[in-house]
Amino acid sequence: MTIEPADLLARLIACPSVTPEEAGALDLLEVELEAIGFAVTRLRFEGDGSYPVDNLFATRGQGGRRLLFAGHTDVVPPGDRANWTSDPFTPRVVNGVIYGRGAADMKSGIAAFVAACADIPTEAGTIQLAITNDEEADAINGTDKLVAWMAENGHQFDFAIVGEPSSTETLGDSIKIGRRGSFSGKVTVTGTQGHVAYPHKANNPLPVLAAIATALSSEKLDTGTDHFPASNLELTTIDVGNPVSNVIPMSGTLRFNIRYNDTWTPETLADWIRARIASVDPNGTDIIFEVSGTPSRAFLSPLGSDIETLSAVIAERNGKPPEYSTGGGTSDARFIAQYGPVVECGLVGPSMHKADEHIALADLTGLTEIYTAFMRRYFVGDPA
Amino acid sequence: MTIEPADLLARLIACPSVTPEEAGALDLLEVELEAIGFAVTRLRFEGDGSYPVDNLFATRGQGGRRLLFAGHTDVVPPGDRANWTSDPFTPRVVNGVIYGRGAADMKSGIAAFVAACADIPTEAGTIQLAITNDEEADAINGTDKLVAWMAENGHQFDFAIVGEPSSTETLGDSIKIGRRGSFSGKVTVTGTQGHVAYPHKANNPLPVLAAIATALSSEKLDTGTDHFPASNLELTTIDVGNPVSNVIPMSGTLRFNIRYNDTWTPETLADWIRARIASVDPNGTDIIFEVSGTPSRAFLSPLGSDIETLSAVIAERNGKPPEYSTGGGTSDARFIAQYGPVVECGLVGPSMHKADEHIALADLTGLTEIYTAFMRRYFVGDPA
Repeated sequence: MTIEPADLLARLIACPSVTPEEAGALDLLEVELEAIGFAVTRLRFEGDGSYPVDNLFATRGQGGRRLLFAGHTDVVPPGDRANWTSDPFTPRVVNGVIYGRGAADMKSGIAAFVAACADIPTEAGTIQLAITNDEEADAINGTDKLVAWMAENGHQFDFAIVGEPSSTETLGDSIKIGRRGSFSGKVTVTGTQGHVAYPHKANNPLPVLAAIATALSSEKLDTGTDHFPASNLELTTIDVGNPVSNVIPMSGTLRFNIRYNDTWTPETLADWIRARIASVDPNGTDIIFEVSGTPSRAFLSPLGSDIETLSAVIAERNGKPPEYSTGGGTSDARFIAQYGPVVECGLVGPSMHKADEHIALADLTGLTEIYTAFMRRYFVGDPA
Repeated sequence: MTIEPADLLARLIACPSVTPEEAGALDLLEVELEAIGFAVTRLRFEGDGSYPVDNLFATRGQGGRRLLFAGHTDVVPPGDRANWTSDPFTPRVVNGVIYGRGAADMKSGIAAFVAACADIPTEAGTIQLAITNDEEADAINGTDKLVAWMAENGHQFDFAIVGEPSSTETLGDSIKIGRRGSFSGKVTVTGTQGHVAYPHKANNPLPVLAAIATALSSEKLDTGTDHFPASNLELTTIDVGNPVSNVIPMSGTLRFNIRYNDTWTPETLADWIRARIASVDPNGTDIIFEVSGTPSRAFLSPLGSDIETLSAVIAERNGKPPEYSTGGGTSDARFIAQYGPVVECGLVGPSMHKADEHIALADLTGLTEIYTAFMRRYFVGDPA
């Protein structure tokens, strides 16, 4: 059985699966995957302060090497439809380019991988797919819980590919082997309000706040690694909002953001921050440190033979290997990286999240060929 | 000729002289002072970013010692009249207490001094009055310019009394021999805005701002003097207002206020601040220091025989000398102190600026007696 990736992509675009509405996209994938021999499990996760999310896990084959493909069916909202040439959820092909919300990010990656699987014999090894419908928004009840469920249920993997658009200008010019993490925090220092003429009756929190700002921003976190620049903390704001010159304020806050490499985790960063704060004399004030939101973890996949195989497949096609990138924002790869090596390898990204999102159908075919060629070598190779 | 202070006070209260409206108060004083031999000059000052103000200078006598009495006829607004038992500009006497806006601050001080003058022979010495109608608001076209005009026109003085309510609980329990100064400033640090992920393309101003905050707040200005506590700087606010965690802000500001003793002037303080700022590495940022508003100068009157005379007059009346205070906010005495020794000696102040402002008529008589007794001794004493 053969699957035509452009046809599958068009049918996926037709599902208006704006986060967190599944809108038939996972139902469609379930049918397609079962048709080529996959066992599909639908998983609905909820709670932890976010909306419920539909997820899909599929596996095929027993034993051999284990490959995981991860992706998402949800898309960002189309925005003002007046900016679209035609309906964002009605796929449209013009001159070999397909338009529609999710065409690049990342229904095409899913369509290409599913189509590639149809060309791989079931006995080659174990292929698994982890597809969420919430990567674009909270990402709380999506891939994070999906990969945890996999680990708990014995679905390990030797290597993972995320089908996010990783190419910058031409298909395969770049794959992502890691990402910096992002950690935002807030420090509030509270003293005792009073009149500037009677400082002995007050306790000004601002000298302590300034000292903490200095303690956080004056010490380097590290000096970088082979694949990452040095981790870096930036103070983003300090705010008191006291409008009058004769009052000592009660409290002040500072906020900061850290972009960090894979020598840190959110936990070790929090420890480092607490130690820096502890180096400052609180002088009777109350100091509260809070993590803002959920930090994005940094990861770097170990550079092993599987990444070399993927690079070789792309090099044979393009005449040069892809750049190994750690740039850009976050993706669900950060959750997967906690369980095994992962790369992001997908289409050309610049139109994603924009009106008239699109990809070239030739690139969709090309990505399907890359996935197919990679799997053929992956499943005959030795485990690292 | 005798002047009844309660009668003069009542007629002054009846003039609704809310700053800067003279409302007949200075006209009334002009008539009263001319009746007891004073030559009166009316001076209208204007410009320098404030409204025009009516002022009055009066002088009587030639040669001998020179005494200056200073005060203001303007009053603060009555506020919500529902909080007043009766009309704030219709004087009302109940059980020996006179009510009305300005009863304490400080039409009573003027009434007492003018009444006292009527009891002093013209040949005793030179008595001068400098009365403004703007002490309560901008104070730009009032006493500051009035005393400068006096100096330019040969009207020097050996000693000055400001008739502000200086007593705290009972008449004469405190006179003010000095005041701390107040200096407010602002420091703005401007760097280069950018994305936190690309710090090499930006220049965060906040570490520099924090270092300046520390430089300003960590070093003591002085350790105090016999009559003043240590000068003190308080950071009053630090503000950036950057709402997003992924942006390095362009600039931030800090504001501070210094309450300082007579070992400093606004000029030496500005030098100190600039030196503290200069101790911080600007790291390529642009640092601007600005003085906020017009600083109030600190002053301490030299403790000489005239203050001793005033203290002795009060001690004979009360059984104990007044406390020599340097507490409280600012008054026009700061302008006068640049030209000669000045004390503040007046009525009991707690009701000033409040609804149902009032003083005891017995205190008004008492203050008139203090002024009279002081002048009798002052004019026979030797110049210091």
